[in-house]
Amino acid sequence: MQTVFILATRGPGLTEFTAEVARWVAGSGVGAGLLTLFVRHTSCSLLIQENADPSARADLETFLGRLIPPADDPAAGWITHRSEGPDDMPAHLKAALLPVSLSTPVADGRLRLGSWQGIYLWEHRARPQRREVAAHLG
Amino acid sequence: MQTVFILATRGPGLTEFTAEVARWVAGSGVGAGLLTLFVRHTSCSLLIQENADPSARADLETFLGRLIPPADDPAAGWITHRSEGPDDMPAHLKAALLPVSLSTPVADGRLRLGSWQGIYLWEHRARPQRREVAAHLG
Amino acid sequence: MQTVFILATRGPGLTEFTAEVARWVAGSGVGAGLLTLFVRHTSCSLLIQENADPSARADLETFLGRLIPPADDPAAGWITHRSEGPDDMPAHLKAALLPVSLSTPVADGRLRLGSWQGIYLWEHRARPQRREVAAHLG
Repeated sequence: MQTVFILATRGPGLTEFTAEVARWVAGSGVGAGLLTLFVRHTSCSLLIQENADPSARADLETFLGRLIPPADDPAAGWITHRSEGPDDMPAHLKAALLPVSLSTPVADGRLRLGSWQGIYLWEHRARPQRREVAAHLG
Repeated sequence: MQTVFILATRGPGLTEFTAEVARWVAGSGVGAGLLTLFVRHTSCSLLIQENADPSARADLETFLGRLIPPADDPAAGWITHRSEGPDDMPAHLKAALLPVSLSTPVADGRLRLGSWQGIYLWEHRARPQRREVAAHLG
Repeated sequence: MQTVFILATRGPGLTEFTAEVARWVAGSGVGAGLLTLFVRHTSCSLLIQENADPSARADLETFLGRLIPPADDPAAGWITHRSEGPDDMPAHLKAALLPVSLSTPVADGRLRLGSWQGIYLWEHRARPQRREVAAHLG
């Protein structure tokens, strides 16, 4: 069973869609199986992380921006691919480092996430985007 | 077919559980399929890596600790989420960067790992923890 | 359904094999399912990334080499595992950070990749290697 989740992002950072995924899994009629998510883009990522604390989410963004600064930052002077703006190549680098696909077992029609785990799309581009996450449950 | 592996970690570093996984796969009666592991936590990771040399494992730990220092290290002054101790936010950052799920084909009832590959849980918290890794074989 | 893709790499960098994977999927007779790739080595990685621009690929290589320099670089003086040459331990570190497995939904006998996504093996060793990527489609 497959679907595509459409997510509207609001610039850099995390958009949670745990509830959308859980609802689709519950409605699928599949009791036990494996859920796989796959992001159909090269400038955003999937993430399963702590869903409780906004300060933890802010620190994730700060960490990634320090590791991979925008191309107009002096620390990123080595970047050569610059034709699509200062956030473009850093977004590809972030997407290379973070997951494009994730899989979670499903039991009794429910995701087997840990208590504190939420499912996020991590937007790496500076502007809002429309993102597609393909899902397979089997 | 599903199970949960319970692992006791001893603070930061790698705990191998290749043998436990191989034994469960062999006993499952599944000849050919796909094994997926999923860690139900936001402060440890899965890793498939070289299982031969302790110095390589030590270097993995050193690398990750230099990339993401504890929150009480001057290099990590930008961390704002500090309520649960200096190892907490760095553990989330490490868990964001490293795999939460891994999949390996199974053939003839055996994992198709390469000769040097072992399956590890990578603990990022300072203290020993009880960790759950959910497994799906289908 | 399973196979192994054999890839000859030419030293550090990306080798695309999207077409080989797509051809195998198309010929499998499987209409809808999930494709999983698994690299059977500890010194190279899988990557799904932009398949259009060579400068983006060059920047990926530069980024990773700056993050994890060769063991004979003064910035990597902390590396202790040095018996197999200056590219060996950095290759393990890169392989730990980047995906060992990837999964993509298949629909109508085709990979559900986004328009700009290609499938690559990322070689981390200095010399050309023969690499095996196990595939499962189910």
